[in-house]
Amino acid sequence: MTTNPTIDPNDPALRSWVPGANDPAGDFPIQNLPYGIVEGAVAVRIGERVLPLGEALRAGLFSEELASEEFLAESLDAPFLNLVAELPRSVRALLRSELAGLFAEGSSARARVEPLLRDAADAVAELPFAIGDYTDFYASLHHATNVGSMFRPTNPLLPNWKHVPIGYHGRASSIVVSGTPVVRPCGQTVASDDGPPSFGPSKLLDYELEVGFFVGEGNELGSRIDVREAWRHIFGFCLVNDWSARDVQKWEYQPLGPFLAKNFATTVSAWVVTAEALEPFLVAGPMRGPDDPQTLPYLADPDGRNVDITLEVFISSARMRAEGIAPTLISRGSFKDMFWTPAQMLAHHASNGCNMAAGDLLASGTVSGPEKESRGCLLERTWRGTEPLTLGDGAERRFLQDGDEVLIKGFCEREGRPRIGFGSCSGVVLPAR
Amino acid sequence: MTTNPTIDPNDPALRSWVPGANDPAGDFPIQNLPYGIVEGAVAVRIGERVLPLGEALRAGLFSEELASEEFLAESLDAPFLNLVAELPRSVRALLRSELAGLFAEGSSARARVEPLLRDAADAVAELPFAIGDYTDFYASLHHATNVGSMFRPTNPLLPNWKHVPIGYHGRASSIVVSGTPVVRPCGQTVASDDGPPSFGPSKLLDYELEVGFFVGEGNELGSRIDVREAWRHIFGFCLVNDWSARDVQKWEYQPLGPFLAKNFATTVSAWVVTAEALEPFLVAGPMRGPDDPQTLPYLADPDGRNVDITLEVFISSARMRAEGIAPTLISRGSFKDMFWTPAQMLAHHASNGCNMAAGDLLASGTVSGPEKESRGCLLERTWRGTEPLTLGDGAERRFLQDGDEVLIKGFCEREGRPRIGFGSCSGVVLPAR
Repeated sequence: MTTNPTIDPNDPALRSWVPGANDPAGDFPIQNLPYGIVEGAVAVRIGERVLPLGEALRAGLFSEELASEEFLAESLDAPFLNLVAELPRSVRALLRSELAGLFAEGSSARARVEPLLRDAADAVAELPFAIGDYTDFYASLHHATNVGSMFRPTNPLLPNWKHVPIGYHGRASSIVVSGTPVVRPCGQTVASDDGPPSFGPSKLLDYELEVGFFVGEGNELGSRIDVREAWRHIFGFCLVNDWSARDVQKWEYQPLGPFLAKNFATTVSAWVVTAEALEPFLVAGPMRGPDDPQTLPYLADPDGRNVDITLEVFISSARMRAEGIAPTLISRGSFKDMFWTPAQMLAHHASNGCNMAAGDLLASGTVSGPEKESRGCLLERTWRGTEPLTLGDGAERRFLQDGDEVLIKGFCEREGRPRIGFGSCSGVVLPAR
Repeated sequence: MTTNPTIDPNDPALRSWVPGANDPAGDFPIQNLPYGIVEGAVAVRIGERVLPLGEALRAGLFSEELASEEFLAESLDAPFLNLVAELPRSVRALLRSELAGLFAEGSSARARVEPLLRDAADAVAELPFAIGDYTDFYASLHHATNVGSMFRPTNPLLPNWKHVPIGYHGRASSIVVSGTPVVRPCGQTVASDDGPPSFGPSKLLDYELEVGFFVGEGNELGSRIDVREAWRHIFGFCLVNDWSARDVQKWEYQPLGPFLAKNFATTVSAWVVTAEALEPFLVAGPMRGPDDPQTLPYLADPDGRNVDITLEVFISSARMRAEGIAPTLISRGSFKDMFWTPAQMLAHHASNGCNMAAGDLLASGTVSGPEKESRGCLLERTWRGTEPLTLGDGAERRFLQDGDEVLIKGFCEREGRPRIGFGSCSGVVLPAR
């Protein structure tokens, strides 16, 4: 059969026959169609269902034009999204459009699609990408200023910060998918600034609320990515929890940056929301004040845009979950408040000729907003533990305790459009070994 | 046929029929047998020849016991050494022993081996590993003290340095094999400490002389590697040039460490010298003075050993190469002068549960010794450019110029043993694009 390739998946009026897809509080309307990995192969999520795309291809659900694309079949049967991200943008646009055609209310393909669907509640979504390199930025002015004021009260924001999208390399091997438990790390910590250190379980375990994006089309070593083209090099977005051991970080990070304080685990959400699905939620950005320095030309994007993603962090203790107490909302902010945009981060990263490849993950750094309630980590939210939070069971939290589950949610809302969500990014803290 | 599996490849009396293998100034005697990738598959180097191991297996050159090992065939035909590094140590020991048997003087297999050999001069050795993660340490006390005294004259060595093997994550995608040209990177640099920055080609391009090692057997996320076991988790060693743009580094590195100043290229030598081949050159280490802090138990290796690898750096300008002038020796030092040992670096890296995998690269950081002539980068060697060097053509060098070739050599020598070498790790600087 041939689906209608002219359907616009971003059409806000589009509705779907798939259960849950038209739920106004749901994350996965037909306008979203995020990709993930289920049963070791590529799948798309809609409402409460998951469609394995290799099976859909073999069932003849795609048009001749799409089905005859080189590499399509092997991309859809691969255990990671890397090959899908390497497909030409035009092919990915056609795929998304035809998927919307299959799922649209009144689709004549419904009877052939329905038997292939899995219930999302039973489908375990796996790590979406084989991540070649992972880079973490530090792109929130509020976060950088807050943390800087704790560690360098007289000099909170360093002179380079508003000129350079500061970032550093993270560890790719320890990136895990949402739902994976996280073992409390051991490390060196000190009682006073100069040591001596002792080795043992971190006492100041924290989360960092971040947004990540995966590269689609990369660049050759020695070449660059123009900031005006950079958005088109982004395949899609996810939620990220950059777990952090603050006591380890404080002692180890000079002069080369965070290392063991961060690389014991980084959690990503399972469903990758495409850049195309987020385009209706792009907003002007970044905010630069009259006293801020001029952006250097290689970072100046006349279309400079942030994505307005509302981000929420919840914590539940083991006791709360056992007693059925709802997770406690710890913070709510928006990704639109970032000083540096995703396009600027990517263009900067490649500005020295560093080669980016499909599946590389770039994360934003902690997303903190201007209010106390929008601070994206406990270090800031409890101001180094001096202003503890109270959970739903009445217990206090300065930093994370064993058994705590950190749950991050993200979604885009705009008047007149279905909400687009990211699902959840969660992990339970296990005791140190 | 069955080769003799009891042959000891480290026997210093062993000699080979392969051309060049018995050259006392050569790098690749029968006691070395480093692995690399040639023509897209695994090969071993000896003297002036290269043997493709998949072909050797198919030609029946290995014993029944070895040839019947699970995964051996696919490991040897793979385009990277990762699968070989994942083979059990006992299998790798048998392979090395049988290779020595094939190459030993008087071997009855000579007539069947000889037709499979390639001339090393024609065999282009490729990147040896698909490197999952790359970590760079900072393990030389002399380097850390020298650089610290330039940037923090009153406080050259930070309080954590003798307690923690300081390291940071590097970029895996831009690691290239010896011989690959390196494009001079562009980046943000400043005329004064506080900016404003401009964007353009780095003017202070430098090399860093390092030694790297590839992980063999890894560890699961959340588990550790005991420092007393860590040496056995190392597959082999290579030479590393961690190219560095000093002007970019100075401006960008606070507070999260080096990023674009380093990730435009890292060069590794092509032939991976196994940990087993280096065992005759292990020496006591590291040096700790009576005033140095006690090593924390998780880093205390009673067998703590460094490898005595002599390291040399040469530079030749384009003009020198055109006129046939020999490369100029810039420095000579030894890897045995490191404060932290490879085993300590690896155990520390995994001490928080970070998962290491076969093919991960850990590099030592710049190897500098106590004398001026043993400083492993131009920043130190010319003391920030204040003490320029003179090349063989009479030209001065403070930092690298376009057309310069940096050539690193490394070898192990000990009375009564054939010398074991690493071949070369080289790259020519191309002009910025």
